[in-house]
Amino acid sequence: MSLTNLKKFLIGDPFPTSHEIHERLDKVRALAIFASDPISSNAYATEAIMSVLVVLGSGALSLTLPLGLAVAALILLVISSYIQTIMHYPKGGGAYMVTKDNLGTLPSLIAAAALLMDYILTVSVSVSAGVRAVTSAFPAVHPYRVHIALAAIVLITWVNLRGMRESGTIFAIPTYAFVGGVLLVIVIGLVRYFGLFGAAPIPPSTEEIFAETSLTGFAYIWLLLRAFAGGCTALTGIEAISDGVQAFKPPESKNAAITMIVMGTIAMSLFIGITFLSTHLSLVPNEAESILSQLTRRVTSGGFLYYWVQVFTAMILFLAANTGYQDFPRLSYFLANDGFLPRWMQNRGDRLVFSSGIVVLAIVSSTLVILFQADEIAMLPLYALGVMLSFSLSQSGMFRLMGRISHLKPGESIQTKVTEVHYEKNTRAKQALNAVGATVTSIVFIILTSTKFLEGAWIVAVMIPILVLFFNAIRRHYARVADALTTSGMTVENIKEVGNVVLVPIADVHRGSILAIEYAKRISNDVRVLTIMTSPEMEERFMRRWKRFPEVVEDVLLVVIEYDFRDILQPLLEYIVTVSDLEFPEMITTVVIPEFIPESQVAGFLHNQTAVRLRAGLRHHRDIVVIDVPYHIESLKKTE
Amino acid sequence: MSLTNLKKFLIGDPFPTSHEIHERLDKVRALAIFASDPISSNAYATEAIMSVLVVLGSGALSLTLPLGLAVAALILLVISSYIQTIMHYPKGGGAYMVTKDNLGTLPSLIAAAALLMDYILTVSVSVSAGVRAVTSAFPAVHPYRVHIALAAIVLITWVNLRGMRESGTIFAIPTYAFVGGVLLVIVIGLVRYFGLFGAAPIPPSTEEIFAETSLTGFAYIWLLLRAFAGGCTALTGIEAISDGVQAFKPPESKNAAITMIVMGTIAMSLFIGITFLSTHLSLVPNEAESILSQLTRRVTSGGFLYYWVQVFTAMILFLAANTGYQDFPRLSYFLANDGFLPRWMQNRGDRLVFSSGIVVLAIVSSTLVILFQADEIAMLPLYALGVMLSFSLSQSGMFRLMGRISHLKPGESIQTKVTEVHYEKNTRAKQALNAVGATVTSIVFIILTSTKFLEGAWIVAVMIPILVLFFNAIRRHYARVADALTTSGMTVENIKEVGNVVLVPIADVHRGSILAIEYAKRISNDVRVLTIMTSPEMEERFMRRWKRFPEVVEDVLLVVIEYDFRDILQPLLEYIVTVSDLEFPEMITTVVIPEFIPESQVAGFLHNQTAVRLRAGLRHHRDIVVIDVPYHIESLKKTE
Repeated sequence: MSLTNLKKFLIGDPFPTSHEIHERLDKVRALAIFASDPISSNAYATEAIMSVLVVLGSGALSLTLPLGLAVAALILLVISSYIQTIMHYPKGGGAYMVTKDNLGTLPSLIAAAALLMDYILTVSVSVSAGVRAVTSAFPAVHPYRVHIALAAIVLITWVNLRGMRESGTIFAIPTYAFVGGVLLVIVIGLVRYFGLFGAAPIPPSTEEIFAETSLTGFAYIWLLLRAFAGGCTALTGIEAISDGVQAFKPPESKNAAITMIVMGTIAMSLFIGITFLSTHLSLVPNEAESILSQLTRRVTSGGFLYYWVQVFTAMILFLAANTGYQDFPRLSYFLANDGFLPRWMQNRGDRLVFSSGIVVLAIVSSTLVILFQADEIAMLPLYALGVMLSFSLSQSGMFRLMGRISHLKPGESIQTKVTEVHYEKNTRAKQALNAVGATVTSIVFIILTSTKFLEGAWIVAVMIPILVLFFNAIRRHYARVADALTTSGMTVENIKEVGNVVLVPIADVHRGSILAIEYAKRISNDVRVLTIMTSPEMEERFMRRWKRFPEVVEDVLLVVIEYDFRDILQPLLEYIVTVSDLEFPEMITTVVIPEFIPESQVAGFLHNQTAVRLRAGLRHHRDIVVIDVPYHIESLKKTE
Repeated sequence: MSLTNLKKFLIGDPFPTSHEIHERLDKVRALAIFASDPISSNAYATEAIMSVLVVLGSGALSLTLPLGLAVAALILLVISSYIQTIMHYPKGGGAYMVTKDNLGTLPSLIAAAALLMDYILTVSVSVSAGVRAVTSAFPAVHPYRVHIALAAIVLITWVNLRGMRESGTIFAIPTYAFVGGVLLVIVIGLVRYFGLFGAAPIPPSTEEIFAETSLTGFAYIWLLLRAFAGGCTALTGIEAISDGVQAFKPPESKNAAITMIVMGTIAMSLFIGITFLSTHLSLVPNEAESILSQLTRRVTSGGFLYYWVQVFTAMILFLAANTGYQDFPRLSYFLANDGFLPRWMQNRGDRLVFSSGIVVLAIVSSTLVILFQADEIAMLPLYALGVMLSFSLSQSGMFRLMGRISHLKPGESIQTKVTEVHYEKNTRAKQALNAVGATVTSIVFIILTSTKFLEGAWIVAVMIPILVLFFNAIRRHYARVADALTTSGMTVENIKEVGNVVLVPIADVHRGSILAIEYAKRISNDVRVLTIMTSPEMEERFMRRWKRFPEVVEDVLLVVIEYDFRDILQPLLEYIVTVSDLEFPEMITTVVIPEFIPESQVAGFLHNQTAVRLRAGLRHHRDIVVIDVPYHIESLKKTE
């Protein structure tokens, strides 16, 4: 049982199921655990807008702020929609549940497939981005970037397997340190920019002004849309909380909604603050230094705060992977619960987290990291599409739900497939909000997909239908199994009869095979011992030993099969199946297999494993019951 | 059964055991199959001597011929010793058998370990050398040399798995083409050199003469010894035939001895011919072109024959690996037969070859190729040591055997451990020959080991004792098993009693578990159904279904275990083991496991596999018999 001990050592003592409520998250930990992805996007979202606009010349960079505000408005829109989702679907499930409840199974599976892929990419991309931060600081370790990324995945996986509360505690520090650091930078920046409290002004930009490029009509709008789409990376990870409502301490919906609002406020403040200052300080994106780093350096003049922000930027990029570890296992749980993924993905592990989902995520995202050699730039075209698709599906779903609610009178309520909704006010206004949200996110999704199609977005387009087919295949399998196993309509007469015969295949006469024969004699009076003889010498030796125990072999039929090949499995199987099919059709035939159990797995390697192969071969045949009569080397010795 | 068909397609139809004699080798095929290694060494053996001597200046190269003659004398010595071995050990087994019979177990295991390692290296080194020939011709494929080497190993493995006769046929062409080509070069060379039949003389050497380096005393002798040791690479593979006497058509010993003589004659003629001409044409070894290539070019003036020899040199280097495929599986067979290697290594496969040995050799040599990146130069220091060690052990063994025979009077015979020997003449002379052989090969072994120790020979020195320990551990395991299983001294009263209880762990009430309960009721009247309940809802649903079949559950004890964790294996195992140990000590307890068998392996992945895990967990406990009651989804449907 040393494997069990190792597991205990690594993962910790198992938690009883009844302790589940103690493992729930308070709002402080929940924010840290769910918000690392959306908050970390502030490290690059402003820059994503600016690096598109800079093509038009540095003058066009002044468009960053309006576009940034548009993105912030979209964040606001999405967050208000998700708060509605949280309040109406207190069991969690996010976009998948909303779509399933309001738009049907197929759209919900599309949303699920898109999100699962995005969660996997969240891990691969974030870890790779974190590794890039490390290798930028220490170029010597660059050749080992894949190893470092895999080590990081192992570490995050391990912490998550130890339980949610614990990982919340561990991940809180870098998240809050990043938020605090950047907020401070923004405050100092604003104070200095507006010259409040007599603060020293920020030194003017020394960046050279680019020549203006004039684009007109469609090309110009297309570029603006691309810039806007770039800024939309700030939206990834927002839906995490809506999936995980059940991870919160009661009252779950309320706590989740509050956390969502706090998260949105923080993410938006950081985003607008960074965007405002970047534009007004006339920062220009460049390859060598990120906008956030430029901004921090200018505002803080490169002091302690500068290094603080840099260090925690690297750390929060790493930790953004953790959002994937929250979302993927939970969405898998909902899918498994509905029979679209393997059942075992809905089981909680020793520490009450969805361990199987965590492990599957670790394996798939590690594979991606290896395939893409930890190069997050190459993975980016695949990323964020899924989130945007699920946003538009989820908002469309909320639009329908609000439509249904709008028909209710005060005091009325209806039960949908998965939740119960009551009368509420302002449904038309909320619906309008959802309509705008659905439209905008759909447009952004189309922009993202079309601009990145050839760079890799086609992979997502191909994978989504494949995953949906896969979900349906699994569901059909479970339906078939349930159908075959159900006892409804079953009577006792349906149960198969047990044939009186017992077959005992043996290779030689020894303590193990004699024990098996004795066992067989105990449950039947038609015992047939089968043995395959591949040479006359073998047969002669066998018969000599056979006759040594007349009291064992009396009343037993010995079937000797002479065989001119070496692999004795085939004739054994053939004899057994023939007896089962012809002599005892539609009845159960029993086979007793004496199996020698060596002291260790390694020792098992020294033996022919005929018993194991025979059992495996018989599995495929119907109506055959196999009895393993083991004989342990050590135990037999002790009874002498 | 499509796996069986694939195997048949790849390997061919199985041969019956009684056809073994048809699969034996005639002398022509045997020569091709056993001689590729010793004959291929002519491609480099002369050069190996010259490249050491050239350090002393080109004048010293004239010592090549005497040293070559010394090596040839050693070959003669070894071959005569091995012909004696073949005649006295007609069952084969070579150095291992001779050493075991005359010097005892430990020396025989040392010889076996040394040889096994050398056979593995034969494959890795030869294949890598062949690949070097290919990549020299096509430098573009150099980055894929490991892949090419592995592909070559797969190919040779495949041909060998198809059977000996077939591989003999396939490998005959390059072997005979190489021998014929080189012999023709030597004949033409001699004719032209001596000006016979008015042949045109060979153009004089244009190589510049190196300055003489004068070494004296020990250093000089050491260098000569190293040159001699280099030439001894010509001896590798010679012992192959003595291992494989039983692969020949009857009369086995005679045919094997004739083949050995022919092989020795060919190998020696080529070696002396090449050495004679190389010295007398004043060839000087250089990096860019091998001595054999220089010789062939000068003699044939670069015509068709030149390319013939080059092509078949590359091919025979590849094929030298095949000698390893003959030797390794056969020596493994002898060791397995004596219980020093896993038993299954003595089984013949479908095509009557030792398939397991072939596969093990392929795996280990592929691993070496990967570890050494197909660089045979790096592997060479490990190579040929084993052969030399086994030569000296085997000759010492033959020395002892001859001593025992010398005491016999005409007509007398004695039975040794493994063979029968009769009176023969000239035993003293033969013994002297063996003594000289043993001494010389021991000295060569010491030279090889000491000159190459730091370059890699130490690995061999470390591995031999490890392998010997490994052999002994396996032997002890089998002895322990045999001891535990033997029926000698056993009486029927020794047989364990079967306890009357039958435990049936089930997760739910469905057709599968009902079938298992019915089966259990048939063999015992103390049936206890175990079930683990992890939540009240689960229990309520279970009890509802349980009560639906009163005629099934009457007389059955239901044991409901409430459990506050998710992994139900532990409480199940604990209950079963407690019943077995406390209620029915020293008796057999029966457990009936209902096992759901999905339509396919892939579908199995969708289920929890509790049955499989439970069975695995119970294996480690004594006195527990497990009955698998399978329920196939498809079959159950059909009976409705």
